[in-house]
Formats: sequence, structure tokens, C-alpha cells
Amino acid sequence: MTTIRRSVILHSRPQGAATLDDFAVVEHGIPALAEGEVLTRTLWLSIDPYMRGRMDDVPSYAPSVKLGEPMIGETVGEVIASRHAPFVAGQIVLGARGWQSHIVSPGAALTALPDGVPYSTYLGVLGMPGATAYAGLRDIGKPQPGETLVVAAASGAVGSVVVQLAKRAGARVVGIAGGVEKGRYVREVLGADACIDHRAVADLPAALREACPQGIDVYFESVGGAVQRAVYPMLNDFGRMVMCGMVAEYDDAEPAPGPNLRATFRKRLRIQGFIVHDRSEAIREWRAFAAPLLASDELRYREQVVEGLENAPAALLALIGGSNEAKVVVRVADPSPSRT
Amino acid sequence: MTTIRRSVILHSRPQGAATLDDFAVVEHGIPALAEGEVLTRTLWLSIDPYMRGRMDDVPSYAPSVKLGEPMIGETVGEVIASRHAPFVAGQIVLGARGWQSHIVSPGAALTALPDGVPYSTYLGVLGMPGATAYAGLRDIGKPQPGETLVVAAASGAVGSVVVQLAKRAGARVVGIAGGVEKGRYVREVLGADACIDHRAVADLPAALREACPQGIDVYFESVGGAVQRAVYPMLNDFGRMVMCGMVAEYDDAEPAPGPNLRATFRKRLRIQGFIVHDRSEAIREWRAFAAPLLASDELRYREQVVEGLENAPAALLALIGGSNEAKVVVRVADPSPSRT
Repeated sequence: MTTIRRSVILHSRPQGAATLDDFAVVEHGIPALAEGEVLTRTLWLSIDPYMRGRMDDVPSYAPSVKLGEPMIGETVGEVIASRHAPFVAGQIVLGARGWQSHIVSPGAALTALPDGVPYSTYLGVLGMPGATAYAGLRDIGKPQPGETLVVAAASGAVGSVVVQLAKRAGARVVGIAGGVEKGRYVREVLGADACIDHRAVADLPAALREACPQGIDVYFESVGGAVQRAVYPMLNDFGRMVMCGMVAEYDDAEPAPGPNLRATFRKRLRIQGFIVHDRSEAIREWRAFAAPLLASDELRYREQVVEGLENAPAALLALIGGSNEAKVVVRVADPSPSRT
Repeated sequence: MTTIRRSVILHSRPQGAATLDDFAVVEHGIPALAEGEVLTRTLWLSIDPYMRGRMDDVPSYAPSVKLGEPMIGETVGEVIASRHAPFVAGQIVLGARGWQSHIVSPGAALTALPDGVPYSTYLGVLGMPGATAYAGLRDIGKPQPGETLVVAAASGAVGSVVVQLAKRAGARVVGIAGGVEKGRYVREVLGADACIDHRAVADLPAALREACPQGIDVYFESVGGAVQRAVYPMLNDFGRMVMCGMVAEYDDAEPAPGPNLRATFRKRLRIQGFIVHDRSEAIREWRAFAAPLLASDELRYREQVVEGLENAPAALLALIGGSNEAKVVVRVADPSPSRT
């Protein structure tokens, strides 16, 4: 068993746009396990937009990553040593957090994963991003038959689930995604009624008006910026904005002005942010609901696999820049031969 | 019986700030009643901030007042002729709408008022403004014991009820009101824990920080502008903004930029607008709840009486400018001698 672990740490806080220089790869020994702890070898690391926010020293729902400490992130790992009774070497678990080749976790934070679907799906469609789509629609967006829902980053980890759930709810679904191929995927595979390529259209408001002739009832927000400015005036009476993220603005050193809020009472709008971790029961509910749909191919997903922990920083920067194709996961290592 | 009615009409649409020249007083004959209609003689006219919005030709939850037509407004009137069976001359009714000395209404729109409390209270503390405070707190603000609630225009028709209901809910209540006398009333009569004079303080954010050492959980918004800009960054996690109005911005020709919405997911904020007329059951509920409290003096209110229909325009402009002292009602006429 190796006694070295590799970590990707936060080397410096971004000034404006984050760069590769803000990260560093370091190697350390692996500490001995205390009672109740479990050591995992990371197989898959999830790359998600919220990680950019943790690089800044700004008050938020979760503490910032400290300079010199490993970046935060969800992983799937294989247990290689355990001082927490339920876990034994060789098990595959969810819940160890960090951009690290090996992670020491409190055993109570871990969940054993069943075989049956690819482990990486527990970081995407079956994991936090899928549950985010589910909880945001269930508790805030509440799309109704015949309503129009617009979702930003529609081919992404959260957006691709939003598209499919909103279609199941009977809504007209208009995706926004950058690039021809993403648009085709959103329409033809995920089933959206339309998908706007925000990079290709010269006039986003006009494109939205054409795609949403009845206005917009629900906007699932994850990008902010120009898309938010185009959508907001098109919200119908009793419109809902499900505020999940604003990735296009995460590199802004100063927050840009937002929308004037007079429309909120003129149109009785609801603008509400949420974090799926506040609704942990939603994650369990979603997993129970979605796993059979995934197995029967009624719920579609795709992943973009990045090879190697050292490439996680570039993967995050690409995600923030919108050049990813789908949910991004980093393959850190393969399972032990005895498992494959 | 007079056959002339006086009306205050919208003479021109405001360009920026509304002025007295945007109104005109006209006299016309009173049309004959059709079957089902009721003619009332107006006793009290309510003056409310929303009226300013109806002077603009902007899409909203209710149509604009047309040029040359009477301004909209709630009244208490005395029936002087009826072709709607339940109503007879001499009854006092709520529901006739318009800045007019005499109003022809469909009988179905009217509600007979009992004696017992001053009729004008049905335009204020027992009426739409009181019910607005009640519904906004019940459905959106939901103040909890120990939370901090801030309410703008705290001495006004809506705000004065918000203060009292939030105190009953166990919240720390901080009012914002312009002027020493209003602040004294908000603290000593309505029972707020503190009241900030936004005209007197040089540094509104600092004054809010001092008055709200635990941050702000609920903001009941009716003014917008500088107060909104000061409150928004102080909202706590899971904070709620009850969007009722933004009177300080109603004269703006172009909407000012609003707050950046990144805080909505960082702090899981809920920003929601509402109109009490969408929740008509709330008006009935509120009246049933509040009338006994009013009778026993557990619910406090005050009114500023403006004499004469022709002074309604100046009363509205003063209200928009914030120089009113309390809920504003116009005494248009006295009840018939037989009733007094």
C-alpha cells in the first residue's frame, strides 16, 4: 500500500478570473487512522461550478477553502483501511471529500454504493447535481402542464435533469446551451422543445421571444449574466426563478448590477435560492426515484471524463468557461483488480 | 338629489415625477342606473402608493388608468339609489372604486359595512393595507421568535400593521420611517424595538447594523431605493424579502439597477412579490381577526384625514414623497344627517 497521497491545493486566491496558477499539486504522507476513521483511495472526483466560489474568501453557505489546503469536492472511493466498523477494505463509498488521491474521512460521512450502475453516476445524475434539479423544481420551480420553463446550461449536470423532469411535468422546455452539438443533444436526446445557442445568436432576447411565445413561467438559473438579463423581463405573472448558480459571474471581482425588483410585485414573482444540502431528504428521494429510470434508460445522462487528478484544475476552469460538454468527472484511479 | 358628479381624472401621464398638472377635476351628469347597479355617494376615499403605478402606461397586474378617466381608488360610500336587491338607500358600503363624488358600481362588487368602528378603517387598518401586511407575513415573511424583521415605511398603512403583527410573532422589529415624530410613534405606540429615521442618519447601513446586531431575517419592502440597497447585503441565510412596493422609485423614468442575485443562492434567500387581491380570502380572514383587536385597542392605527376630493392629487403626491404622517384618507362627504 502506498504511503504517499497527492493533493491539489488552493495555492492563491483568484484575482478576477481563476487560473491554473491558483492551484498546486503537493505530495504528503498519509496520516495514521484514528478510531472511527476510514481511508479511501479516490476513483472518481466530481467537478462542479460551486467549487469556484469556494476559492474566494467571501461569506457563503460553506467556508472557503483555506490557502494551502486541498480543494473541496465529492468523490467515489475504494476503502483501503477502516477503523469504522461497518466499512471494510474493497468497499466502494461516496462521501469522502477533497481533490486528493487518498482521503481520510469520518466513517459516519460515508455511504456504501451498490453495484449496478457506473459509480461515477453518483457524482452526477444520481448525485448532488441530479438532486439539485429535482429539489429546485419540486420546491420552487413547480412547472405545471402547459407552462414554459427555460433552463440555462441545459446540457450540463443539473440542466440535463431539469430538462427531463420539466418535460415529465408537461411543461414546454427551452434550453440554453453554447454550441451546436449541445443544442442537438438537449433537443434530440433530452427532449427539450427548443434549445438556444447563446454563442451563436446575435440577439438573445429575440431568440427567447421566438422560442417562448407565451413568455416564461419558470427559469432555472445557473449562469447569470446576459442570459439572466434576457430572461427576467420575459417572466410571466407568478413566474419563478430557481436560483441555483450564476457561473458566468463567478470570476467577476465586483458583482454586476442585477435586475430592478419592481417586477417582483408587479408580476408577483418568486426568486429563491437554494442549496440541495439543506434538503438532504431530497437527495435520498431523488436517488430512489431516479435509479430505476436510469436503469431503464428513461433518464438520460452523459459524462465527460477527464483523466488524472492533476488535470482537475483545468477541468474546473473549462467548466466555469462553459467549454465542457457534459457533467465533468475526473478519473483519479481504477478500482482494485479484485473488484473489476 | 344632486345630478352632478365630480371626478378627479388622469389628465396626462407623468414624465418622471408626477405633478398636480397630471390631474384635473371635471363635472358630469350621473348616468341612469342599469339593472344590478348601485349608486353611492362617496364618504371616504383611500390614498395608496399603488395609485402612482396606475398613472403609467406600463404592463402591470392591473390596467393603467386611461387618460381622461377617473383615477382608481377604494372608497366607502353611502347608497343613494339601488337596482341591486340587497342594497337600499342609506346603507354604508365598501367596494365602489374611483376618485369621484358619486360612483355607479355593479352591486356584486359592494359589501355592506357594519357600524361599530369608524368607516374609514375599512380603507386602512381593516382594509387592503392591513390585509396586505397580514398576507405578506403569513405567506412569505413568516417571522419566527427571535428573528429580526425590518419594515420600511413603518408608520404607514401597511407598515404599522407589519410592526404589530411581527411583534406578536416574537420577532425583533426594526422600523424605518422619516422623521422624529414617526419614529416615536413606531416605537412607543406600535411597539417596535427600534426605528431608524432614514432622513436623519448620515450612514443608513451603519444605523441598520447597529439596530440589527443579528442581521436581518425578514425585510418587508415598500420603498426600494437606498433602503433596499442598505438592507439587501444584511440579509441572513434563509432571509425573506416580502416585496410589496418600491414607492421611492415610482417616479423614476428608467428603472435603477437592482441587487446582484448571487446572494440568493449563497444565502438561500427568497424574494417574492404579491398582491393582496390575489389572496382575497386573506382580506376576509384579516378583517375577522383584526376587528376585535381594534375594538379592544390591541391593534393600533392612525389616519391622516385630507378634506375634500379636490385635494386627493396633492395627498397622493405627498404620500409618494413620504411626507404623510400615517394612513391617508380623503373625507369626500359626510354621511346623511339621518345616519349621524
